[in-house]
Amino acid sequence: MLVALSGGADSLALAAATAFEAPRAGLRAGAVIVDHGLQAGSDEVAERAAAQARALGLDPVLVQRVEVAGEGGPEASARRARYAALDEAARATDAACVLLGHTLDDQAETVLLGLARGSGAASLAGMPARAGRYARPLLGIRRATTRQACEDAGLEPWDDPHNADSAYARVRVRERVLPVLEAELGPGIAEALVRTAEQLREDDDAFEAQIEEFIEEICEPAEAGIAITVGALSANPAALRQRIIRHVVGSEFGVSLSRAQTLEVARLVTDWHGQGPLELPAGVRVTRSGRHLVFSTTGSTEVLPHDH
Amino acid sequence: MLVALSGGADSLALAAATAFEAPRAGLRAGAVIVDHGLQAGSDEVAERAAAQARALGLDPVLVQRVEVAGEGGPEASARRARYAALDEAARATDAACVLLGHTLDDQAETVLLGLARGSGAASLAGMPARAGRYARPLLGIRRATTRQACEDAGLEPWDDPHNADSAYARVRVRERVLPVLEAELGPGIAEALVRTAEQLREDDDAFEAQIEEFIEEICEPAEAGIAITVGALSANPAALRQRIIRHVVGSEFGVSLSRAQTLEVARLVTDWHGQGPLELPAGVRVTRSGRHLVFSTTGSTEVLPHDH
Repeated sequence: MLVALSGGADSLALAAATAFEAPRAGLRAGAVIVDHGLQAGSDEVAERAAAQARALGLDPVLVQRVEVAGEGGPEASARRARYAALDEAARATDAACVLLGHTLDDQAETVLLGLARGSGAASLAGMPARAGRYARPLLGIRRATTRQACEDAGLEPWDDPHNADSAYARVRVRERVLPVLEAELGPGIAEALVRTAEQLREDDDAFEAQIEEFIEEICEPAEAGIAITVGALSANPAALRQRIIRHVVGSEFGVSLSRAQTLEVARLVTDWHGQGPLELPAGVRVTRSGRHLVFSTTGSTEVLPHDH
Repeated sequence: MLVALSGGADSLALAAATAFEAPRAGLRAGAVIVDHGLQAGSDEVAERAAAQARALGLDPVLVQRVEVAGEGGPEASARRARYAALDEAARATDAACVLLGHTLDDQAETVLLGLARGSGAASLAGMPARAGRYARPLLGIRRATTRQACEDAGLEPWDDPHNADSAYARVRVRERVLPVLEAELGPGIAEALVRTAEQLREDDDAFEAQIEEFIEEICEPAEAGIAITVGALSANPAALRQRIIRHVVGSEFGVSLSRAQTLEVARLVTDWHGQGPLELPAGVRVTRSGRHLVFSTTGSTEVLPHDH
């Protein structure tokens, strides 16, 4: 396994814990440090973290220098580059698992950021404890505990200046929002947010599993698109109906519908009175045609499903 | 229909809107004012609201004086007394519907209070727009809009001093938490909270409907309790499994399990290695017995399900 190490208190404590536990569990553990090259001296920060990892007995220790560029904001670009580098390190070392140092505090912040988006269980579900080769063993541990663990072990963590830059919404949540929530609603709010995330992740997983079970039955190809049977949509409760609509549009056209758009599509089923086609983003059009909702890309709306 | 009127801006605006709309829709609308008798002069506040309702043309206008007492905190007692009085007024006047003045702001506050409890979709689902004879037509309207509507109509609302008393968690959420969220995460946070509530309510309703469908099949009576088949629990995703456990314990014994307790019960299914019985609150005991989980009250644990 590899520990993804930034040099910060969270991942440094994780590196120390992994270096201690892995040999006792008969596992081999190394570390990978991603140098994003975004700050002056980032190479030195990476080398210092690498030296700490080696001193802890982790082996191998890789430093991956990445180029942060491409679409989206700087945070999204850095994230994409980081995971690409971690994936590459895992492949290069044949690591079965990459451990990430996200803590309970990170998870609580993620939930609050999702709350601001207002897009339901999926956006409040936080980060998964396990996803593919990635695992987050510290999601139940407070950040302060990782800092204390470093101090107890004589490890000096690196403090990323980005973590104090209030241009980032996450930093504002950490420094201003969570403290106010704790003061006004009582301590334990971070833990409550994390419990909420766990439950909403389970909820969302359950719906996804249910959709997987029957999505193929209720969909059929249509010219330049896909058709869903109206009966399948109307028989299901709103939560499933709307997820099916989002799922189909997402998987077929790569378009993520807002709640308002999803509800408008759903009304072609729940409040059908002969509405015309709806225009969705990216040239996607949805037309009610008899017992089907037909999703197609614009220019190909003269598609009739097979039962017409 | 009856408007539940406190005299505050929200319900006063609702009363005015109802007085305007109801006759145009061919409906008869009255008002009911509940005097909780908790503050000096509460009878005058109630009479003033009643006069405003009459001046708006609502008819009949009832003032219900209640006694706030009994179990739970003062807020819970007042709430219980209020709804009992509203129910009685609806029965006395044969009203089909009681309109409540809760706004989008109230809903956002309710979601944040639920977030602090950390008990998942059900606690984040906020107040329903419709439940039995109660309806909340202003859940999509900001509180400021109701105040403006009163001003525009020349109606002077009553300001409940409780609404400024920071001993109440709801008041702290309103005055300190929501403003910080808006400042740090951008305006629109209240609307995002309300969208979240809508979606989580749909999610929870869907699970409840699914459980209703099969709960009778998977349960059977056991001596001094009830048994669930292990297969039904293991075949369902975690979200449903845990809701089934909470549902059974809640409906059979009137006990509301915490998440930690629910997960412990679930482990009798998902991580079975011969554990002994679990003791739950209120003397409820759960025992794995072959292909069943048997829930019983303490003292009656020698119950074997029918297949043993």
